[in-house]
Amino acid sequence: MENDDQKHDSVSTLEALQESWASLPSDQRHEGFYALPREEAEELFLLLSAADQYELIDDLQNTQKRGWIRLLAPDDIADLIQQFPHDERAQMLALLDITTMREVVALLAYAEDDAGGLMNPRFIRLRPDVSVDVAIRYIRAQSKAKIETIHYVYVLDQEQHLLGAMSFRDLFLSPPDKLVSEVMVSDLVTLPEDMDQEAVGRKFSQCGLSALPVVDAEGKMKGIVTVDDAVEVVEEEATEDIHKLGGTEALDEPYLQINLFKMIKKRAGWLTFLFLGEMLTATAMQFYEKQIERAVVLALFIPLIISSGGNSGSQATSLVIRAMALQEVRLRDWWRVFVRELAAGLALGLILGTIGMIRILAWPSRNELYGEHFRLIAVTVASSLVGVVLWGSLAGSMLPFLLRRIGFDPATSSAPFVATLVDVTGLIIYFTVASIILHGVLL
Amino acid sequence: MENDDQKHDSVSTLEALQESWASLPSDQRHEGFYALPREEAEELFLLLSAADQYELIDDLQNTQKRGWIRLLAPDDIADLIQQFPHDERAQMLALLDITTMREVVALLAYAEDDAGGLMNPRFIRLRPDVSVDVAIRYIRAQSKAKIETIHYVYVLDQEQHLLGAMSFRDLFLSPPDKLVSEVMVSDLVTLPEDMDQEAVGRKFSQCGLSALPVVDAEGKMKGIVTVDDAVEVVEEEATEDIHKLGGTEALDEPYLQINLFKMIKKRAGWLTFLFLGEMLTATAMQFYEKQIERAVVLALFIPLIISSGGNSGSQATSLVIRAMALQEVRLRDWWRVFVRELAAGLALGLILGTIGMIRILAWPSRNELYGEHFRLIAVTVASSLVGVVLWGSLAGSMLPFLLRRIGFDPATSSAPFVATLVDVTGLIIYFTVASIILHGVLL
Repeated sequence: MENDDQKHDSVSTLEALQESWASLPSDQRHEGFYALPREEAEELFLLLSAADQYELIDDLQNTQKRGWIRLLAPDDIADLIQQFPHDERAQMLALLDITTMREVVALLAYAEDDAGGLMNPRFIRLRPDVSVDVAIRYIRAQSKAKIETIHYVYVLDQEQHLLGAMSFRDLFLSPPDKLVSEVMVSDLVTLPEDMDQEAVGRKFSQCGLSALPVVDAEGKMKGIVTVDDAVEVVEEEATEDIHKLGGTEALDEPYLQINLFKMIKKRAGWLTFLFLGEMLTATAMQFYEKQIERAVVLALFIPLIISSGGNSGSQATSLVIRAMALQEVRLRDWWRVFVRELAAGLALGLILGTIGMIRILAWPSRNELYGEHFRLIAVTVASSLVGVVLWGSLAGSMLPFLLRRIGFDPATSSAPFVATLVDVTGLIIYFTVASIILHGVLL
Repeated sequence: MENDDQKHDSVSTLEALQESWASLPSDQRHEGFYALPREEAEELFLLLSAADQYELIDDLQNTQKRGWIRLLAPDDIADLIQQFPHDERAQMLALLDITTMREVVALLAYAEDDAGGLMNPRFIRLRPDVSVDVAIRYIRAQSKAKIETIHYVYVLDQEQHLLGAMSFRDLFLSPPDKLVSEVMVSDLVTLPEDMDQEAVGRKFSQCGLSALPVVDAEGKMKGIVTVDDAVEVVEEEATEDIHKLGGTEALDEPYLQINLFKMIKKRAGWLTFLFLGEMLTATAMQFYEKQIERAVVLALFIPLIISSGGNSGSQATSLVIRAMALQEVRLRDWWRVFVRELAAGLALGLILGTIGMIRILAWPSRNELYGEHFRLIAVTVASSLVGVVLWGSLAGSMLPFLLRRIGFDPATSSAPFVATLVDVTGLIIYFTVASIILHGVLL
């Protein structure tokens, strides 16, 4: 992460405004945006997210709104319209010309997170049986039409089945008298229209192309997804996973922009759930109250032991969840992960157990603090640490598999979730070990 | 996150192999790769990461190695060579032809995480004072040269200063007798050669272009970065942040591929550090040993209270770290974040405090368990929860600012790190509140 915080006292220029956009409060955005010359404002408008666009034009007159909406490609219009309250959407659609309106209505039928929801229905179509020369003349004629800066042409048959594609460059560099079908590439990477957006992002990072065609189940081409959407998707999905891993519902809005009450609601749900789970520690502790009364020294190490389990569980769950998101680890790999975590958990437990034992045995006032049986206390703490860290690693790594198996998002297995789970079981491990080792001595 | 686990019993085809690549063990990769027809193997080779490429060709003869390395563009060769041990790199460079070798050596001088380290030094250069017609003929002649599939041409002066650029499409669609300087776009988005790769990824998601030029401090063009590299960078940076947030050093290798001993080492460092920090809880508890002896009931709620602080801290730190990575929040925003977390922490603390109070007051056997002063215990627990959750939210959100301010990566402020910090202070808050409320009653 780089350290590029700069002071922007004025945000009068397009570049400065764009640079600081994400961190500006709403009123300064409005002010800066409408202070720009129209041409620069249009340039910026095209680069903003649908949520930001909505914020800027929401309180304009309809005719003014139309001026801004018309700048956008159909897929971006669809995104923008989804920002409006349900009862205003029809009114926004009515601002569009009839062709665009049809395209946007078709796009609105897709789920926002699917390839279909990301795609632009406008692209350049060629017939396979025309010559390169004719194709180039056709494209020249089309070039005034509003098509996003894209770099490929697609070859379709009468029924819109996708037959092939090629870059503009390859088309222009081909012999003019060849047929399009002779120079096109027919072995294509395509996106099914219902493909999840996370998988779309991965396809782009695998294939290195700047646009991919979207096809339906019959191989008919519906539109294209461009790579800039894929970059956004990858960022968005990572943000969601990071929020979930931190033990909160994904905010789905920038931290400084989201309504405070809404943010508290998104955090309170999980926090309360975790709190209710953690209450089991109080219940578990009740069973050991007598033991604590007899040996208060045991209480001293409770936070140390349960938090070590939580930390090792947090490590394991973060690593496994990220590996799953990147498809490095799949459901059927659970056994390989289990074996790795068994080894890692045991090793890490032994390291912490050894440090814990040294800490107690080497403490200057060990006799006053821990009593005459400080050696047995040290053994109890060290053995519990091995058990708890091992258990934390196994629970943290297996929980994402379990969640995915039963149909939940593995990222639900957040660091705090695992920590809570391990806290309760950690107490049971600790007091069970204590009652075995200290039996007849302190307990 | 979608659920697309499939059973691949055979991985004989290119597509199946590519699909399951990330989760295959090393020997099955080798086997599948070398079983492919040469042409398909070459196609796959181009799509693999440098680490995977290295693994596949490491044990081949030098002449065979050369056959594979030659397929790659200079930037990919530079990445691959960095996978080899230092003492073998010169030998690998010697396998290249002289032009490529010079390019690769120049690239190796850049830091891997800079724009310069991501860039490809090969691109199509035009002079500003030639006609469109001549430019197109020049490109046709060049098209046999090995240039990555790119979609832009760049206009440079004699000293290699970048003057403008345009897409192939726009060039071909321009009137043939105009000068290149008349049809090029001169208001360009460029990447400084030392720009951090995270910032590079953000530039791509902002501008929506498929390649960006890299320039040095004098405006001389050095190469291009293509968007597929940007997608990889965005994924890589998110992986790093997720690993760190989980309380481990970034693995920098896939979970199932990394050497077990190496993984344990990467996890043990932080785990030990956190353990040493958490030992302060045992020290803090010593001070309260007398209080626990007098009122063992206080010990029952220790895990509940400190973990609630840890959970709220984990939420706050994850949200703030992600917002910083996306540049939604900058250093100078610390005060706005502080105010938000003050409000959120107070609200969340009150929610948990209320639940905690109800739990104690409504527990059927409250008198036997908590004694006659159960009401005062309930007030103690509830007030401590408010304090601890508030403190957790503030500490978790401010720590990333502090870390960035003193030059560290804010993602170092992991969930477990914040939890450890809050555990120690949470104990102090709890016992201080207890000694005030229960003074003269139980303590």
